[in-house]
Amino acid sequence: MQTGVKTVQVRDVAESTVCVHPTAVCESQNVGGGTRIWAFAHVLDGAVIGQRCNIGDHVYVEGGARIGDRVTVKNRVMVWEGVTIEDAVFIGPGVIFTNDRYPRSRGLPEAVGRYGHKGTWLVTTMVRYGASIGAGAIILAGLTIGRYASIGAGAVVTRDVPDHRVVVGNPARGSCWACICGVPLDDNLCCPRCKRRFRLRADTLAAAE
Amino acid sequence: MQTGVKTVQVRDVAESTVCVHPTAVCESQNVGGGTRIWAFAHVLDGAVIGQRCNIGDHVYVEGGARIGDRVTVKNRVMVWEGVTIEDAVFIGPGVIFTNDRYPRSRGLPEAVGRYGHKGTWLVTTMVRYGASIGAGAIILAGLTIGRYASIGAGAVVTRDVPDHRVVVGNPARGSCWACICGVPLDDNLCCPRCKRRFRLRADTLAAAE
Amino acid sequence: MQTGVKTVQVRDVAESTVCVHPTAVCESQNVGGGTRIWAFAHVLDGAVIGQRCNIGDHVYVEGGARIGDRVTVKNRVMVWEGVTIEDAVFIGPGVIFTNDRYPRSRGLPEAVGRYGHKGTWLVTTMVRYGASIGAGAIILAGLTIGRYASIGAGAVVTRDVPDHRVVVGNPARGSCWACICGVPLDDNLCCPRCKRRFRLRADTLAAAE
Repeated sequence: MQTGVKTVQVRDVAESTVCVHPTAVCESQNVGGGTRIWAFAHVLDGAVIGQRCNIGDHVYVEGGARIGDRVTVKNRVMVWEGVTIEDAVFIGPGVIFTNDRYPRSRGLPEAVGRYGHKGTWLVTTMVRYGASIGAGAIILAGLTIGRYASIGAGAVVTRDVPDHRVVVGNPARGSCWACICGVPLDDNLCCPRCKRRFRLRADTLAAAE
Repeated sequence: MQTGVKTVQVRDVAESTVCVHPTAVCESQNVGGGTRIWAFAHVLDGAVIGQRCNIGDHVYVEGGARIGDRVTVKNRVMVWEGVTIEDAVFIGPGVIFTNDRYPRSRGLPEAVGRYGHKGTWLVTTMVRYGASIGAGAIILAGLTIGRYASIGAGAVVTRDVPDHRVVVGNPARGSCWACICGVPLDDNLCCPRCKRRFRLRADTLAAAE
Repeated sequence: MQTGVKTVQVRDVAESTVCVHPTAVCESQNVGGGTRIWAFAHVLDGAVIGQRCNIGDHVYVEGGARIGDRVTVKNRVMVWEGVTIEDAVFIGPGVIFTNDRYPRSRGLPEAVGRYGHKGTWLVTTMVRYGASIGAGAIILAGLTIGRYASIGAGAVVTRDVPDHRVVVGNPARGSCWACICGVPLDDNLCCPRCKRRFRLRADTLAAAE
């Protein structure tokens, strides 16, 4: 679940237990140590969840979904088949992913043929390392959310989001850039909190040397 | 639950059983055969659900709500009293219906009189045959969503939506037209996927002869 | 839980029991008499809920959240630490509060320091007496929703909302004014339903003498 990213130990001792709340249902055999699954959550068989994640109340993780290490999945999030979330991502409360661009009921005769095999409807989504998706945001199917990108609360994301980009609104539009630590950069592309500096070249933000 | 629509058998053998997940609560006596109700869902006494529906995790269906046959109700949807959903509709994950235009707490003394009987606050909603409501969309009370209409993910619908119309945004605005199969029509009102042709007359879309 | 507001008895006899649905989990010792907690809801230790509230299905109330008396909390609402809701408020279905402006995963090494103590990330929210928050609205952290304000369904609230103000959209903008009873005022600042009259002075709405 890493894409060229060195994993850093954030605690001294790796925890080996998966904690599942008594009211939650965890049917997956692929949940990493130190991960906690809270009340009324449902993790289906075939879902993959890494180590030291926090899976909130009422979350749903479908078979075929992949979640990396140290990911925070706040309450009520739904992660469908076809969605991949890299390490150290924050998924805010009530965020909705999707995996079908033109959904119809499978009980509609004119549409039922489309659901015969996944190639005709299933579209994948990727959330890259360190990104943050704000409360209640909706991510249309087929998109990539870049590393350290920050999706504003309530945004409806209809296009790919570059690394470090902050997007807000419906449809979501770029508003500014976010530091690795999450704080918006100032006009000089400097983080007012941690003082990291960045530069912009060909619409791509990178750490300044 | 049909409005002049011939029901088509989409499977050879009618299923007669209602499947209710062990963690779900189904208090209604009016759920049709072949319908499945998934984890942590709650169907209240007085709710009506047709045959072969799929009612996802964490769904809530209130007494007085009516859902037709072969309807897909994805996870976390809430269907309130006053909402009617015709056959073969797709309700995306996290969709929210409403049934009160000017809600206040019933414990607010100045508003409590309004809640004495339903005629002063309850407003009904209709979702017509074959329509599709995208993930996280919100439908204000008192509206009709037309046949085969497609509501975009995250749309906030404040006006009636005509048959086949695609609407997106907050507030939702018309963007294009959808085929019966769900795919947006091209500029010639032809479906790029299934090749059905339509024509537009007096703002109403219909199949071309 | 009152801010200069006289509590009015809306029923003759105070109810003393807390009703908790068999599937709900209530870990708080601070829930007032007459309050009902419905299916699959989760009220954590340290949450404070007043008397005669209605806490809907799938609701989550975190330790440190404070809810007053006679509050309606519809299904699926999440109330986090740092959120205070005064008496007689209506929180619509699926409303999302937040308490962190720049969230990152606590497993992201560059952000973990920010989560060492609450002063560096926890931002509080206040919902004042008699307000109403429409279905699916999202309230950014650090805001105050004024008395009798009405937040439209699906609004994404990014700024404080004055008393009686109606806001809609993403981001939410003022659209008109609401009466105490919830109905929008006409152009003369009179309520078409209950005939209360108001006046506007220095952008503040108050009852006319």
